[in-house]
Amino acid sequence: MLNQQVVLKQRPSGIVQENDFGFVSNDLRDIKEGEIKVAIEYISCDPAMRGWMNAGKTYIEAVKIDEVMRGFAAGKIIESLNPNYKEREYVTGLLGVQQYAISNGQGLTHIKTLNESLSYHLGVLGMPGMTAYFGLLEKGQPKAGETVFISGAAGIVGSTVGQIAKIKGCKVIGTAGSAAKCKYLLEECSFDAVINYKEEDVAKRLKELCPDGVNIFYDNVGGPLLDIALTRLARGARVVICGAISQYNNKELYGPKNYMKIVTARGHICGVIVFDYIDQYPKAIRDISTWISEGKLRTKEHIVEGLDNFPSTLRMLFTGENFGKLLVKV
Amino acid sequence: MLNQQVVLKQRPSGIVQENDFGFVSNDLRDIKEGEIKVAIEYISCDPAMRGWMNAGKTYIEAVKIDEVMRGFAAGKIIESLNPNYKEREYVTGLLGVQQYAISNGQGLTHIKTLNESLSYHLGVLGMPGMTAYFGLLEKGQPKAGETVFISGAAGIVGSTVGQIAKIKGCKVIGTAGSAAKCKYLLEECSFDAVINYKEEDVAKRLKELCPDGVNIFYDNVGGPLLDIALTRLARGARVVICGAISQYNNKELYGPKNYMKIVTARGHICGVIVFDYIDQYPKAIRDISTWISEGKLRTKEHIVEGLDNFPSTLRMLFTGENFGKLLVKV
Repeated sequence: MLNQQVVLKQRPSGIVQENDFGFVSNDLRDIKEGEIKVAIEYISCDPAMRGWMNAGKTYIEAVKIDEVMRGFAAGKIIESLNPNYKEREYVTGLLGVQQYAISNGQGLTHIKTLNESLSYHLGVLGMPGMTAYFGLLEKGQPKAGETVFISGAAGIVGSTVGQIAKIKGCKVIGTAGSAAKCKYLLEECSFDAVINYKEEDVAKRLKELCPDGVNIFYDNVGGPLLDIALTRLARGARVVICGAISQYNNKELYGPKNYMKIVTARGHICGVIVFDYIDQYPKAIRDISTWISEGKLRTKEHIVEGLDNFPSTLRMLFTGENFGKLLVKV
Repeated sequence: MLNQQVVLKQRPSGIVQENDFGFVSNDLRDIKEGEIKVAIEYISCDPAMRGWMNAGKTYIEAVKIDEVMRGFAAGKIIESLNPNYKEREYVTGLLGVQQYAISNGQGLTHIKTLNESLSYHLGVLGMPGMTAYFGLLEKGQPKAGETVFISGAAGIVGSTVGQIAKIKGCKVIGTAGSAAKCKYLLEECSFDAVINYKEEDVAKRLKELCPDGVNIFYDNVGGPLLDIALTRLARGARVVICGAISQYNNKELYGPKNYMKIVTARGHICGVIVFDYIDQYPKAIRDISTWISEGKLRTKEHIVEGLDNFPSTLRMLFTGENFGKLLVKV
């Protein structure tokens, strides 16, 4: 049984290039006692992947050259020698960018019955959804009537944050990079306002839209946009740092020059690490599933077919070409 | 009665220059019903003064050109038409950089009985002492056994923060810019370690001194030092922004490129605005007075005589030439 795999060929300088990756095909070994064999159906393209490609450890080891690229994936169990997992059940986790994965089950999320599309478990019901849920609700502590501003709002995390904030009774404003994305956020995700950062003066518009300031800033983008948001904080504001996608291809992060605005706002800057809430995932998944079934929360997927297309697909994340949760269907 | 006053002549570009100020002598008018006349004895030189000299409102209006320079001062009441204030009592407050001030008493701190040097009420028992006390205890929430790192530790705020942290059972490390300041912090203020940032590799030394990371970083300095501290945060760290004296003469603040370290540290960045604790000043003053009388907290003053010397004295704050709370004795 041949297993096609995507491996890291070289560490990118700046934005990811297709030739940073290579393809290999290896014979898939037999599984041992306690292991399962998974046929991967979807691979998630995530901003964090860019960091894993750099040399040096951050919160996790770097991917080594010629090693299979690390990635979240979802697939069906096709063989099991582990009593906890049955054939035809599903799992998600760091299964790697490949056709098949062998695992002892550790660190995987086990989906015994599939009520939604499997791909949702890499998006709104997976890590990005959990990041949105806990980042907003635990770190942001939204109260009804407050104003929530979200950068990168059309992304899977941003659009989920915004819709949960609406469910909690907040006024929600986001930034996005195309007219289609803005339209989607306004019409499908019930945002109160959206700023097209490529065409509008964000500082000016944000001031108009939030005369009383921003209570929660949920930042997926970093860079100069973070500096703009810092100038509009309401008293007691919470800045929740989720990511800095504008900066991941740079050698050095952009430091927010207006960081002292957090002092005069009597606010604080914190972040969200989704793994800290692992014990509470089931409740979050139940809540989000309910909101989806009630029509209160929508999600959009951008699915590209074929493992061969993984390198060019990942690149789209950083050029902003994707629209919806970006996945490769194997 | 002539009143010598220091006025703002021009807005400084970069570091404060002596010719940014001018001197005028005006006849002091008679006081009206409800007012008091104060003979100023000490004028405080504070980092915040630099901000007040720039155009544009921040948390307070800018000082206007040809207006008396704003400043905290302490003096004796020499005449009173206000029933709440008696002659020979003392007050501190924003009395301005001048020999005499007329006030209706609003916003002043009233010292009916003087148990310590009047000058202490501009330092360890005044705004800087309150900033240290509430910034550390309310915002930092120190626990015994934790490590507290302080930039600008030889300043009045930094040295007070460090000594209160020691009283609370913490390990205390600071940075200072001369061998004499380092010696003072180690020998008189019981710091556990001090890094001379002008001569030592701060990042390397901090790593050696805090193998388990920094639980509280109390920042008076900003700039690249803040970036270094961010790389050494322990899990759950609190970064308390008090000031950024390294940056006040620059057109633009230095943005901390490592701000995302607060995310992986599961910590937060906040600040301290001393005025928010005005109701609790009496308790803080009692605590600090007690610690001084018990010999647990020491303070150092750097007093320059003569209002004429105000411009050159203020400049010392930004060149780091002062050693101790900087005051002009009128």
